[in-house]
Amino acid sequence: MRQRFKPWAKEKLIENPKYVSVEPEKMKGKWHAFFGNDNPIHIEVGTGKGQFINGMGKQNPNINYLGMELYDSIIITALDRILEDEKPNVKLIRADASHLLDYFEPGEIERVYLNFSDPWPKSKHAKRRLTHESFLKRYETVLKKPGEIHFKTDNQGLFEYSLHSMSTYGMFFNLVSLDLHKSDMEDNIMTEYEKKFSEKGFRIYRMEAQFRS
Amino acid sequence: MRQRFKPWAKEKLIENPKYVSVEPEKMKGKWHAFFGNDNPIHIEVGTGKGQFINGMGKQNPNINYLGMELYDSIIITALDRILEDEKPNVKLIRADASHLLDYFEPGEIERVYLNFSDPWPKSKHAKRRLTHESFLKRYETVLKKPGEIHFKTDNQGLFEYSLHSMSTYGMFFNLVSLDLHKSDMEDNIMTEYEKKFSEKGFRIYRMEAQFRS
Ligand SMILES: C[S@@+](CC[C@H](N)C(=O)[O-])C[C@H]1O[C@@H](n2cnc3c(N)ncnc32)[C@H](O)[C@@H]1O
Ligand SMILES: C[S@@+](CC[C@H](N)C(=O)[O-])C[C@H]1O[C@@H](n2cnc3c(N)ncnc32)[C@H](O)[C@@H]1O
Repeated sequence: MRQRFKPWAKEKLIENPKYVSVEPEKMKGKWHAFFGNDNPIHIEVGTGKGQFINGMGKQNPNINYLGMELYDSIIITALDRILEDEKPNVKLIRADASHLLDYFEPGEIERVYLNFSDPWPKSKHAKRRLTHESFLKRYETVLKKPGEIHFKTDNQGLFEYSLHSMSTYGMFFNLVSLDLHKSDMEDNIMTEYEKKFSEKGFRIYRMEAQFRS
Repeated sequence: MRQRFKPWAKEKLIENPKYVSVEPEKMKGKWHAFFGNDNPIHIEVGTGKGQFINGMGKQNPNINYLGMELYDSIIITALDRILEDEKPNVKLIRADASHLLDYFEPGEIERVYLNFSDPWPKSKHAKRRLTHESFLKRYETVLKKPGEIHFKTDNQGLFEYSLHSMSTYGMFFNLVSLDLHKSDMEDNIMTEYEKKFSEKGFRIYRMEAQFRS
């Protein structure tokens, strides 16, 4: 995602502690308190500008959504979306998924969403893909059993890789769609990238994967 | 596959016992003797007119290929192809994959190929799909560990279903291609259906799936 340098972004994030956690290590084990209820927590890793997380939060008021994003300059737009239309069940975490175990206690999360994750097409970069074995291990640790990952992408190579990587890890697929926008997709909430790529006529791939317990 | 009634077909099959087994129950445990060597045996279930099995036999002389097909009137064309260009490692079995356990001893086979299997799109017919759990169980029994299934199809629904069904069964995917004819596909041998559908511009899906041992 394109980033512009926004020196004021960090400050604005810090000024909104009700919605954004910029020191997520301190929240470990306390996320339900952050939301103020015991509803399930679903995280989106790489939430970008937050269109998905905001849409999901509106659609499902009894689920808590936590959008995780690496960059201040991007997550700031997600924060603006929340402030425009406040929902108690949508919050943000400015953090790196590589350190997931520092942010969450085992079982604290009930689902992981991955949407249009960076493809890292070169095989020497496979370890950076958010569906690489090392990430799956982290998700499995923080997810309450049986944990699910819901994944959408336009990137054929990343989807092929993920079918391989997840099944080899021991996960199975409750659902696979190889052309989401030509299938029955009730309640699909589009992400920014999804809108852009589906309008260009690209296929959108989607799966619901589950850890074997 | 379209069938015409060919009353002479059965007779011709019977006249060529060197290449075709029409009483496969009698061959159980004796397939290596049928081929006259101890090379691995790979079967194609639903071999149709035999273009794939003949091409594979030519490409890989050290593998024994056995094409299984339900109908006399279709398998007869596969026999003609063998007779045109005799290869010691390509043979046929006129039989129904539902009864696989009557034809093979556990471990007698090293790989199963499924190519453009009938899709049976209605969910009430899911049990007839050659990647339904009940068929996977049969393949697993007759396959030597770690057994592989290599599957190609143009049918999106059947491929999606198979990713679900196989992974849920416990299999994993060593390789998935969501657009075979636009990927590096060294040594791909086309089937009749593959030629027809890829020429129409349809995508061909392919996977290599393995049982967890
Ligand atoms: C291609 S964008 C997709 C954004 C959004 N999900 C969508 O579908 O429109 C991927 C996003 O993931 C973020 N990201 C990549 N790696 C990350 C990580 N390890 N932890 C958190 N976010 C990450 C990037 O900064 C970027 O904003
Ligand atoms: C759609 S055709 C594909 C033929 C060929 N594999 C190709 O790709 O061109 C499927 C074939 O599978 C055969 N078949 C279907 N069910 C079968 C079964 N249970 N046992 C053996 N053959 C079967 C059908 O008779 C048909 O010839």
